[in-house]
Amino acid sequence: MPKARIYITLKPSLLDAQGRVLENALRQLGFETVQGVRVGKYLEVDLQPDGDPHAQIEAMCQKLLANPVIEQYRYEVSDS
Amino acid sequence: MPKARIYITLKPSLLDAQGRVLENALRQLGFETVQGVRVGKYLEVDLQPDGDPHAQIEAMCQKLLANPVIEQYRYEVSDS
Repeated sequence: MPKARIYITLKPSLLDAQGRVLENALRQLGFETVQGVRVGKYLEVDLQPDGDPHAQIEAMCQKLLANPVIEQYRYEVSDS
Repeated sequence: MPKARIYITLKPSLLDAQGRVLENALRQLGFETVQGVRVGKYLEVDLQPDGDPHAQIEAMCQKLLANPVIEQYRYEVSDS
């Protein structure tokens, strides 16, 4: 059964406020080596084997899962 | 500069309500092949090259980034 793993992140030019908060929190906990944190979403989608899974996932990202205006995404499809 | 990519998901035995909502929404949009959706977090952490990055990331996950009671996490560290 095809499984897609989708990684959605804010576009690099945009301020990632949530990441900045985590970065400060990590520093305050003593993790001085932290240089930057970006926060994104990670989705696992199980599909029935019917049609082209790449095309289906691309359409899902465009229509619902990601906001293409401010987010970028990438995905990989495996058969596990 | 070491970069860690961290994937945090709910433990498989727990109901992923957010994933269930996305699954239903995708079906209603016509993506009938969707069998299941799990939602997680994806973090990119940039580190200064000082000490063992794996040990640092493990400690960050345990102390702040993940909730080990309900979440599981995995990470990879690259030198890009």
